[in-house]
Amino acid sequence: MTAPSKKNRSKNSEDKNSNSGTDWFEMTPIGILTSGFKEKFGTPRQPGLIPMPASIHMLHPFDTPDAFDGIESFSHLWIEFVFHKNTEKGWQPKVRPPRMGGNEKRGVFATRSPFRPNGLGLSCVKFERLRKESDGLWLDITGVDIMEGTPVLDIKPYLPYADNKPDACSSFASDAPKARLQIEWQKTACHQLKQSEADHPNLKEIIEATLSLDPRPAYQEDQNRVYGTRLFEFDVQWKVINRIAIILDILPAGQKKP
Amino acid sequence: MTAPSKKNRSKNSEDKNSNSGTDWFEMTPIGILTSGFKEKFGTPRQPGLIPMPASIHMLHPFDTPDAFDGIESFSHLWIEFVFHKNTEKGWQPKVRPPRMGGNEKRGVFATRSPFRPNGLGLSCVKFERLRKESDGLWLDITGVDIMEGTPVLDIKPYLPYADNKPDACSSFASDAPKARLQIEWQKTACHQLKQSEADHPNLKEIIEATLSLDPRPAYQEDQNRVYGTRLFEFDVQWKVINRIAIILDILPAGQKKP
Repeated sequence: MTAPSKKNRSKNSEDKNSNSGTDWFEMTPIGILTSGFKEKFGTPRQPGLIPMPASIHMLHPFDTPDAFDGIESFSHLWIEFVFHKNTEKGWQPKVRPPRMGGNEKRGVFATRSPFRPNGLGLSCVKFERLRKESDGLWLDITGVDIMEGTPVLDIKPYLPYADNKPDACSSFASDAPKARLQIEWQKTACHQLKQSEADHPNLKEIIEATLSLDPRPAYQEDQNRVYGTRLFEFDVQWKVINRIAIILDILPAGQKKP
Repeated sequence: MTAPSKKNRSKNSEDKNSNSGTDWFEMTPIGILTSGFKEKFGTPRQPGLIPMPASIHMLHPFDTPDAFDGIESFSHLWIEFVFHKNTEKGWQPKVRPPRMGGNEKRGVFATRSPFRPNGLGLSCVKFERLRKESDGLWLDITGVDIMEGTPVLDIKPYLPYADNKPDACSSFASDAPKARLQIEWQKTACHQLKQSEADHPNLKEIIEATLSLDPRPAYQEDQNRVYGTRLFEFDVQWKVINRIAIILDILPAGQKKP
């Protein structure tokens, strides 16, 4: 089995000054991620913040349990993936990290922005289990900040002695983002939640954690605006008044409130 | 600027059952790594073990200082790269990790083996400085386990709150590899070292750390065999007797001992 392909085809002429003398590499997805985060809006910006369960459906020929032999020794895994919804937009040398309020710019290599050269993403997640089903091999994980349908390029064990850097520091973005919004449930939404908890026991926690991070763009402060966030098969409807996210409805996705 | 290219060209017919329905992605090197590790033999198997200085020479159009604005806020960086010397050999579902003595097999996704689908490597290194020189933009780092000429695909900041997992565990490979060989210097090698230390102040430390990890294949125990390890522009010659690595000579690379 060969991977990855190394390409030396000459690039088109207008490109000849860029990337001088180098090849490029073809990367093949080894699996596709299935996640409760069905769209970019609401998907957290770092892993580990929300106990969102997710699974990687392994693609042939990477769907052999042999390739995972010993993985149960590890509590955490690295997932390397492609920000596939962002790749058409390309990259810019400077980006606006949401942690800086969306106003200040930083160099793309000083951020984890999804708009970056090669669109490579990297997330540490918890390993849950490997499942062999009639439709193939599934790797169950939790704590993802990765959206539905994401192509996965690699899975590696988290090695505590190499990856834990207790002396690592950063003069910004060093703390986990704090909850920025309080949460209130409206009565209707409470009822709808109860009906859904059989299928999704963590649903309340996941909704609250997702909205408390305030997924709104930094420049929006319209108190009348109702937002919809897709989580699992639900469209969670909410608005923000005085830093409180008020959850209005949990509707089946695609169904408008009458 | 667009990146990465997403490809949907149909694959050749014998491949049609693999990777059903998915695309692949073209990844462009953003820089080339220059390291004192000039060959695979002797290059450590994890980052952070040896204070090896290294630099990434940024390629156009990724050679703009703007793309690094704010990077001095971070003490550590993630380097994502391609194991370019291994890609022709492809991958197998099971590999023999050297930490297991080279005899036991493990699933490739339960290891950091360089022989893996897509050949993606991931190393945490220390950030040193960004340098603008007449020949371009250089990112200086230390602690690499990456060899000379490696194509770099991405550079990301290490985020302590997301990447430090104090509760992470693994039931094997959880401790840093211990020094496996003691070191002794022969007189000739000592003299040669002194002559080289002006250019490479850490040379003694780097040689000792590299050899103490015992880069020999697990199945070799020939006490008469002289090994050569290329570090910087030197060919370090050594042999092993009773778990002691005896350093014989530090020759200019390419020069045979008379």
